[in-house]
Amino acid sequence: MSRQQRAEIDAMVRRPQPESPRSVEELRAGFRAMMGEMIVPAGIRTRTATLGDRPAVLVEPAGTPKAGTILYFHGGSYVVGSPETAMSLTGNLVTRTGFRAFSLDYRLAPEHPFPAAIEDGLSAYRALLESGEDPSATVFAGDSAGGGLTVTTCLAARDAGLPMPAAIVAFSPGLDGTRTGESMDTKASIDPFFTREGLEHTGAVYRAGQDPHQPMLSPATLADLTGFPPMLLQAGTNEMLLDDSTRMATRARDAGVDVILDITADVPHVFQAFTGVLDEADEALDRAALFLSQHIRTRDTARTSAG
Amino acid sequence: MSRQQRAEIDAMVRRPQPESPRSVEELRAGFRAMMGEMIVPAGIRTRTATLGDRPAVLVEPAGTPKAGTILYFHGGSYVVGSPETAMSLTGNLVTRTGFRAFSLDYRLAPEHPFPAAIEDGLSAYRALLESGEDPSATVFAGDSAGGGLTVTTCLAARDAGLPMPAAIVAFSPGLDGTRTGESMDTKASIDPFFTREGLEHTGAVYRAGQDPHQPMLSPATLADLTGFPPMLLQAGTNEMLLDDSTRMATRARDAGVDVILDITADVPHVFQAFTGVLDEADEALDRAALFLSQHIRTRDTARTSAG
Repeated sequence: MSRQQRAEIDAMVRRPQPESPRSVEELRAGFRAMMGEMIVPAGIRTRTATLGDRPAVLVEPAGTPKAGTILYFHGGSYVVGSPETAMSLTGNLVTRTGFRAFSLDYRLAPEHPFPAAIEDGLSAYRALLESGEDPSATVFAGDSAGGGLTVTTCLAARDAGLPMPAAIVAFSPGLDGTRTGESMDTKASIDPFFTREGLEHTGAVYRAGQDPHQPMLSPATLADLTGFPPMLLQAGTNEMLLDDSTRMATRARDAGVDVILDITADVPHVFQAFTGVLDEADEALDRAALFLSQHIRTRDTARTSAG
Repeated sequence: MSRQQRAEIDAMVRRPQPESPRSVEELRAGFRAMMGEMIVPAGIRTRTATLGDRPAVLVEPAGTPKAGTILYFHGGSYVVGSPETAMSLTGNLVTRTGFRAFSLDYRLAPEHPFPAAIEDGLSAYRALLESGEDPSATVFAGDSAGGGLTVTTCLAARDAGLPMPAAIVAFSPGLDGTRTGESMDTKASIDPFFTREGLEHTGAVYRAGQDPHQPMLSPATLADLTGFPPMLLQAGTNEMLLDDSTRMATRARDAGVDVILDITADVPHVFQAFTGVLDEADEALDRAALFLSQHIRTRDTARTSAG
């Protein structure tokens, strides 16, 4: 990352000040403003939709979509964010794969704390299957808290007896409500987004008194991942949540799951949102798109390959 | 991996019997026969070449090669193998990237023990640079012991003051002469290629009395990787050498190196050689090709992307 790129990113990030906690509405407006600066690719088509009981945004590529559906979960600590704030990431996956995506507007805390977001994820996936979607042509993707939802929705689907999706892609996922990763301390001074205080504040808002020591809140350290589909975990070395990904990868490997732990040095949390600014973002999105294309199986194609 | 695929692989592997150690010539002939069954892609052109003082095979794609050079190191425990035994892997990287490759016929033990192979790797890289190759358009790739050479040749190049290559791709690399990975024990019963006795036999032949506790023999646990180029490490969960890759990935990450740890479940050592038999092999090679394409920079192109 060049000095100029770092300056551009720093200007976009506008680190929140933990000494002046803000209202939920202020947090949401600030996040919307920050994410509104991310570049949404040209040529995608969006329209509103409903999945289960929740609104969603259907994102389609220019031209005829390829067979395959991405269920996307936006980031925002389960407190802020919406399909719109993640449109750069969702749109980039759509344009790079040719698949359509449904980006879910799941319920947020504090109005709807844990496990509302996971319930909405499960309902959305169930609705996709009931509408005739082939699970082997459906993948979960998400960033930050939404990366966490790719995993916990998959856990919930398995518990409900639903078939697994074809793959999971998680950008800088949050996977540990106990916040015990070493990177919580070792990366604290170089993470431009987070502080321990900030993470613990939004985590408490989401949990609303629930014990974080349970698989649905801390899957990186507590979840049984048996039977999970192939996973791609991407993270940067400049983020406090790095070890959420490294521990999840170890846990997945030990459970016999295909897992790619894709770490980019010297970039921040959800660096993939910086397409057009950071080469590493475009390159990581290209790798994610290839991974998704390799794992989407349709009834017509035994195997999809970018080779 | 299906039952039929497993049966095909088992038939190809013909596990050596540790209770009847064979002569070096028998080992070399057996390895040649086994690897001769791997499918070499159509359309590549090969011719002999010299790099430093050693023979090599130049492998070129059909049509005009793209600007970029792969320096390939074959596998075989530093005792067996040749550019020909790795031609399936080398050829597949060439056809999938469009780059040319030089596959180095480095010296083997017991005739030429450690550090002869590393010296040959360094001489070959130096010869490429002296012939005008751009280091930012040159990558190292290799399998098994050759995966180890991608790393140790890079260490030797750094020690010699040479510029780093643009990237490293290692298929199931051997990176720990002390053989202390947990997978040495946990994967012993399911690894179809290796036994501890076999690995320790060939390791002793290579070391010829040298202490394995040194970075050039155990880089996964001892090497300083500062300044290393981006690395892609691919391994299967059915191999005793799995934790050579997992520990290398942790070490690289801690040194600030971009590193992708790409683990495929339920496949054996160097499963990428089973193209045409195993979908996972083709998919892993596609990911390796994208990674190489992303990191080859030529003087004409600021950025290469498959996006």
